[in-house]
Amino acid sequence: MNDSSVGQAGKAATVSARISPAGGLDILSRNEVARLRDVSGSGLHGLLRRCALAVLTSGNISDDPGSMFELFPDFDIQVLQQDRGIKIELTHAPAQAFVDGQIIRGINELLMAVMRDIVYVSTQLEQGGFDLDDSVGITHAVFEILRNARTLRPHVDPNLVVCWGGHSISREEYDYTKAVGYQLGLRGMDICTGCGPGAMKGPMKGATIAHAKQRRRNNRYIGITEPGIIAAESPNPIVNQLVIMPDIEKRLEAFVRMGHGIIVFPGGVGTAEEILYLLGILLHPDNAGIPFPLIFTGPKQSAAYFEQIDRFLRLTLGDEVAQHYQIVVDDPAMVARAMVRGIDKVRNHRLDNKDAFFFNWALNIPLAFQQPFRPTHSAMRELSIRHGRPRHELAADLRRAFSGIVAGNVKDEGVRAIREGGPFDIDGDKDIMQALDALLQAFVVQHRMKLPGGTAYEPCYRVRAG
Amino acid sequence: MNDSSVGQAGKAATVSARISPAGGLDILSRNEVARLRDVSGSGLHGLLRRCALAVLTSGNISDDPGSMFELFPDFDIQVLQQDRGIKIELTHAPAQAFVDGQIIRGINELLMAVMRDIVYVSTQLEQGGFDLDDSVGITHAVFEILRNARTLRPHVDPNLVVCWGGHSISREEYDYTKAVGYQLGLRGMDICTGCGPGAMKGPMKGATIAHAKQRRRNNRYIGITEPGIIAAESPNPIVNQLVIMPDIEKRLEAFVRMGHGIIVFPGGVGTAEEILYLLGILLHPDNAGIPFPLIFTGPKQSAAYFEQIDRFLRLTLGDEVAQHYQIVVDDPAMVARAMVRGIDKVRNHRLDNKDAFFFNWALNIPLAFQQPFRPTHSAMRELSIRHGRPRHELAADLRRAFSGIVAGNVKDEGVRAIREGGPFDIDGDKDIMQALDALLQAFVVQHRMKLPGGTAYEPCYRVRAG
Amino acid sequence: MNDSSVGQAGKAATVSARISPAGGLDILSRNEVARLRDVSGSGLHGLLRRCALAVLTSGNISDDPGSMFELFPDFDIQVLQQDRGIKIELTHAPAQAFVDGQIIRGINELLMAVMRDIVYVSTQLEQGGFDLDDSVGITHAVFEILRNARTLRPHVDPNLVVCWGGHSISREEYDYTKAVGYQLGLRGMDICTGCGPGAMKGPMKGATIAHAKQRRRNNRYIGITEPGIIAAESPNPIVNQLVIMPDIEKRLEAFVRMGHGIIVFPGGVGTAEEILYLLGILLHPDNAGIPFPLIFTGPKQSAAYFEQIDRFLRLTLGDEVAQHYQIVVDDPAMVARAMVRGIDKVRNHRLDNKDAFFFNWALNIPLAFQQPFRPTHSAMRELSIRHGRPRHELAADLRRAFSGIVAGNVKDEGVRAIREGGPFDIDGDKDIMQALDALLQAFVVQHRMKLPGGTAYEPCYRVRAG
Amino acid sequence: MNDSSVGQAGKAATVSARISPAGGLDILSRNEVARLRDVSGSGLHGLLRRCALAVLTSGNISDDPGSMFELFPDFDIQVLQQDRGIKIELTHAPAQAFVDGQIIRGINELLMAVMRDIVYVSTQLEQGGFDLDDSVGITHAVFEILRNARTLRPHVDPNLVVCWGGHSISREEYDYTKAVGYQLGLRGMDICTGCGPGAMKGPMKGATIAHAKQRRRNNRYIGITEPGIIAAESPNPIVNQLVIMPDIEKRLEAFVRMGHGIIVFPGGVGTAEEILYLLGILLHPDNAGIPFPLIFTGPKQSAAYFEQIDRFLRLTLGDEVAQHYQIVVDDPAMVARAMVRGIDKVRNHRLDNKDAFFFNWALNIPLAFQQPFRPTHSAMRELSIRHGRPRHELAADLRRAFSGIVAGNVKDEGVRAIREGGPFDIDGDKDIMQALDALLQAFVVQHRMKLPGGTAYEPCYRVRAG
Repeated sequence: MNDSSVGQAGKAATVSARISPAGGLDILSRNEVARLRDVSGSGLHGLLRRCALAVLTSGNISDDPGSMFELFPDFDIQVLQQDRGIKIELTHAPAQAFVDGQIIRGINELLMAVMRDIVYVSTQLEQGGFDLDDSVGITHAVFEILRNARTLRPHVDPNLVVCWGGHSISREEYDYTKAVGYQLGLRGMDICTGCGPGAMKGPMKGATIAHAKQRRRNNRYIGITEPGIIAAESPNPIVNQLVIMPDIEKRLEAFVRMGHGIIVFPGGVGTAEEILYLLGILLHPDNAGIPFPLIFTGPKQSAAYFEQIDRFLRLTLGDEVAQHYQIVVDDPAMVARAMVRGIDKVRNHRLDNKDAFFFNWALNIPLAFQQPFRPTHSAMRELSIRHGRPRHELAADLRRAFSGIVAGNVKDEGVRAIREGGPFDIDGDKDIMQALDALLQAFVVQHRMKLPGGTAYEPCYRVRAG
Repeated sequence: MNDSSVGQAGKAATVSARISPAGGLDILSRNEVARLRDVSGSGLHGLLRRCALAVLTSGNISDDPGSMFELFPDFDIQVLQQDRGIKIELTHAPAQAFVDGQIIRGINELLMAVMRDIVYVSTQLEQGGFDLDDSVGITHAVFEILRNARTLRPHVDPNLVVCWGGHSISREEYDYTKAVGYQLGLRGMDICTGCGPGAMKGPMKGATIAHAKQRRRNNRYIGITEPGIIAAESPNPIVNQLVIMPDIEKRLEAFVRMGHGIIVFPGGVGTAEEILYLLGILLHPDNAGIPFPLIFTGPKQSAAYFEQIDRFLRLTLGDEVAQHYQIVVDDPAMVARAMVRGIDKVRNHRLDNKDAFFFNWALNIPLAFQQPFRPTHSAMRELSIRHGRPRHELAADLRRAFSGIVAGNVKDEGVRAIREGGPFDIDGDKDIMQALDALLQAFVVQHRMKLPGGTAYEPCYRVRAG
Repeated sequence: MNDSSVGQAGKAATVSARISPAGGLDILSRNEVARLRDVSGSGLHGLLRRCALAVLTSGNISDDPGSMFELFPDFDIQVLQQDRGIKIELTHAPAQAFVDGQIIRGINELLMAVMRDIVYVSTQLEQGGFDLDDSVGITHAVFEILRNARTLRPHVDPNLVVCWGGHSISREEYDYTKAVGYQLGLRGMDICTGCGPGAMKGPMKGATIAHAKQRRRNNRYIGITEPGIIAAESPNPIVNQLVIMPDIEKRLEAFVRMGHGIIVFPGGVGTAEEILYLLGILLHPDNAGIPFPLIFTGPKQSAAYFEQIDRFLRLTLGDEVAQHYQIVVDDPAMVARAMVRGIDKVRNHRLDNKDAFFFNWALNIPLAFQQPFRPTHSAMRELSIRHGRPRHELAADLRRAFSGIVAGNVKDEGVRAIREGGPFDIDGDKDIMQALDALLQAFVVQHRMKLPGGTAYEPCYRVRAG
Repeated sequence: MNDSSVGQAGKAATVSARISPAGGLDILSRNEVARLRDVSGSGLHGLLRRCALAVLTSGNISDDPGSMFELFPDFDIQVLQQDRGIKIELTHAPAQAFVDGQIIRGINELLMAVMRDIVYVSTQLEQGGFDLDDSVGITHAVFEILRNARTLRPHVDPNLVVCWGGHSISREEYDYTKAVGYQLGLRGMDICTGCGPGAMKGPMKGATIAHAKQRRRNNRYIGITEPGIIAAESPNPIVNQLVIMPDIEKRLEAFVRMGHGIIVFPGGVGTAEEILYLLGILLHPDNAGIPFPLIFTGPKQSAAYFEQIDRFLRLTLGDEVAQHYQIVVDDPAMVARAMVRGIDKVRNHRLDNKDAFFFNWALNIPLAFQQPFRPTHSAMRELSIRHGRPRHELAADLRRAFSGIVAGNVKDEGVRAIREGGPFDIDGDKDIMQALDALLQAFVVQHRMKLPGGTAYEPCYRVRAG
């Protein structure tokens, strides 16, 4: 029964065990098993090993994903075709995922989700099942990955609240996300986040307690991640539906198409980018009239964060942008009630338009938001951050500018580009660019953006004459 | 609520209604919905209409599938994307599928199974998801269609008994198939058949009563059919898992790979062909040592049928062929006990070989059995029905000869070919060909094969000098 | 595992086995176990043995319950306190209740129901938990026995149809009861009968098939019986909730309080008595305005039966009595539709009156209908079968007269009483008594009442001058 | 739907609402409904009101139960017979039990548990269903109350861990109880406590998270309380099975008969009394050989507590007493592993002795432990706290002495008795009485016992010359 042995590999306690997959995903074909075992060029095995280790260290917090492999250098995972399905062979795996030699069932299920998505996406890509050059094609790929993961549920009234926010936040902010999750849970809402610590975990934890009090079963704690961040933000153990989207843009689209409303907690620059992504879509003329509840909220201590965001949004996109969100300070119950009301409008709108509850087909997400942005000097030069442009186009460029400036300040690749090629040239109105600066500087002060070396903030761009 | 209207179209009572899909298959993508609505060249809508009508007349018995469309000439089915999933619009549908304007839920589920398989197979075919030129590729296609239909269940001990036999049999024979199904059901066996009347329905009916007495839930009454026969043999209403395989060969492979044992009841020539198909596979040297319980059984009155089959098999394939089957006359409990014992061996063998319970990957099914046989004069001329050949090759050619002779005697296409091109030339040993004749003649006498015009049986071939 | 041995005791195959109780009723206290084992004076063990044997021969049909004990003279049942609850030791039990040495689960559950009710009723009687001298007290006893059997279910919409009728009926009549059950089942109705063969079994069988087609789970096939008849009418195997009421009157009250509507099929004199019981209650002024759908129905061939009943009821109780029932000939779908409509009225009435769905507290059942009637010369002399009395009182006396006359004609005790004391003196109007005669004579002609010796019908009473 | 109104009664926010009972206990008879509504002499309504308020303030922490009624002076609860069962009318109930006017489902279920037990116990007492003069009779009453509450589950392997300890403990101790609960939960254990805050809540909270990680369903968080303490220790919201035993002795017996092992966390004098209660039973010669895992555990900081307890137990009851418990300091995983091993022995012992898993019938609990002790001067005089007595008798008297001394020091009634009648005379050996003093003094120092007025500890008894 207990097919495991305990060891000590490298610095941390490990377990080697042969486990049976939990969660019903164990009907792989022989092809798929072979694919997962394939260590060669395709890199599928490497991807699997990386994601699996993230799941097995679920609950660990570390800013340095690489360290995981230093702790568990001999970790490996193999898939075996077996009687009654398949078996997973884990060698030198983190002991924390096991109890007395038995893998914790929730972790087992997350492991299977990883395998399911990796094999599905790679098979579809190889067979040409996805058409990724085309906006509609990308949306279909998102749909089919979610469907294959059994994440789309028909006949369920809209109740999925997506929560965004920083994964490294203050204690007050974390407790506040729990309180909001608790109030949502009391009202029968399910939670979807990016799955990691901080604002990704708090709402799920709060909802868990509320769901227990309401004796609610079949709760959904959905985590949507992608290979690039799963190692850094390993799924918190409450997640009971995990989806690995192939890249960050499809992950964002998954949030927006599945969620019936979004709550944004304080976060870092990533959170600000997400806000611009979503508002850029909501501002598109095609999407006028589609209800989409969006609430910015935090505890008293964080009121400044959303004041700054709000000021910046109004300046750049006009005061009307504020129609798309509501700011609530320090009132979890009010957040929950507002979200319930907003989702009720979503429900009625979909009924009126005979649209599905489980996937927001109606929303137009332009290709500009679906394709990744690489912040090079030339790409930055093509942006146009100027008053007077259509707001959704300006939002898209703002998001890109944001992304580039952050990269130039703190990301390896960006910092190097600036060092070699000088500051980015951006075609922008001065007041906007200054406001952007002020925003970033505030993030630094609030410890929401860490500069390399801890030096003072200094813009990495210059504004080109209009 | 009651979104239906009652009518009288053509000769039969009809209902028009908009229904919600039952059974969880309602998460179609917009592409797939469009595909199902497409009436043009691809013919998908025609296929859907034909299969849907078969399901909606579930329980009807008619030898003439065409008549269904005469009864319901205005029947149509459309798929609509809708809030909470999709809706199905049925117009002038058979009233028998409804109760007070509401569709019977079991029929609703079968309808969804039809849609699920049609859309899946056509999508895979179009995208090149299947490699059908290759034996392994065909097996994978069979696997993936069954998996997509959620028919493969891991973690379930082997208990699936496939029942073959005629769909038009005597009352005694029908009652006997019910008695066998009852004994199987008492022992926790599930049933899989080709879904239609006669020996396809009796075992399921018997098992239903036994399962109720045993308070067994989650019973499986699996029907595997294909577009060419579903109209003639509409799924009996007990079937709770329906799969539409794309053609007859994949349907046969599905039986053999999913079933843990097979029981053959008396039938017509089709049944005899199935026996040769299965024995041809089991006689292949690669499959030696793989346990596969196979029982021929019928009531006292039908003892002659299996005596003749047995005699023919021993003559052509040698006495050793009889090691692969057991003949039981008029003893349902003994049949069930023997099957349970046989399946226990299957279980142990798979455990020993670490093979899956839900799909018999180990069995080698040569391409000869996977590719369809068209009985033309030239194809018949290439057969070699001679003693001394490897038995599995002889069995394959025998099956083909059988198929061709039956076609030449009773099938439209075949009868015409003979009328135009004269009798088939077959390269065969005389004693075998005579035995074949005798067998067919016996079928005619026992009313198991109907000749056009009711004339006496006359061979449609001549034996070529060795 | 297989703790059983096979034998041959007396004339029939037997099995001895130690079984675990199914159905969750195995938390008996040590007191209760002791009580069940007690063979002494209290007779509880004898009662248990008798009822258990009836259940174990479930499905057998015999007019002579005594014969069961001749077939299985050495049968015994013992209860053992054990790890994980209790074990039941069966010795020389009917082999038909077992499959390969394992008891059929449904029969196991019925066995547990028998034990549950026997121990509960005897404990309550001993402790004085029931107040049986009083109408309200009797109703409470009925309620508590049903509640203890978990037969009362809150939060379920009214859907329980009680079916009455003969247990020994013609093939046409039996098939008709199946057809009605099928139509009820298609419409989501559950079935409650007296549990035995004939009209007690047909509706359940038909409903089973319809429920399967509708994929309906949690179906209820309730059988209500009592120790005096369980041996003669052993529960058919479809019954999945069995209740043993302590006597015939409480059994009738259970039907009337639990059922939301009643269908009466053709039957013998017992059925006629049941009709008078129910109409007597419905005619009581206190019960005016309480909806209670009551349908008399049978196939074409049985139309005469209900014509005679109807004529007799109108003569004796006035034409208005016919407002309480509807006669439907040969139309199962119409019966089902009428019942569904009737039960809808019941539902609305209970909602309006804030009364429970699962127990008809509102109905006034006078003590006269709750107390047993013993047909002695003196008891018969006190009846008054005369026009002009309050109808519900006349109905009560008619039921008693009926009961006495039948006893005097065919029951051991009654026939002996007549032989010794001469015919009963009844105070009655002549036309009513003649009509009663005619009715009984018709039953004899239709083979619904068997006279001892098969002689012609002869009244066993004389009418006293008014 | 939302049948509620919000108000402000007295000092706290309130809600008035009519609710439907959750949890299937809504089939009360009309008698029982009447009983619950009865405000007169019997006091049942008062009892109901008090317990209901405790449940509705679930989660509140207050040392002064009386204050609850000051906060909600107008609170009332009424029971109404209704369509589909009963309705509960709550007036001026604590708003914290509601979300947007809807009662929290978990609280609804606890409310129903309160009603179920109150009506059951009072009915049984009135009808003489319990024989409380007799040891066996008391055990049966305990059994039947637990059975009626559906708390006894057959067919479940032993896994119920009872946790005892203080309800007012330090943060470290509370966190430690959570950690132990987490380790128990990971290993599939269920938790039973006295339901309140502190050590009653921590283990359940820890187990909840572990159960979620293990995807374990049907978890049991059993709270056993009694009317005298429910107000002071209102059930924490995790409890999903609540039982109200009629008094403290039956509550203790319920713990000991249902639990498969007991963990004792640091607590006050009450906890020390519970330890003596349990050891007194385990030391009884009849109970020799019955395995009963008993673990004393706490965090590092609390090591002294169990050292003192251990020293006292060894002095008074001999070193052999230590065979009955194990002390584990600061190692939650070791506690859980030891408990799992201990329960495994319980399982095997019950299997060997064919005893039930769900109720420990085998344990002999002498009447001395079942009957309440009232600490009067005369009762105290009869104790004999002397070396050389049978250990289980000495333990029983020790428990009583303990109880009396505590009463004399801190309880209203006891303090008054001492003030009026002088110190208790106890017949005891000096060394034992001194050890007892030392123990109590240590509790005072550790803030585990609060003296009225906060004065220094002073014994309230004098030792009588032997």
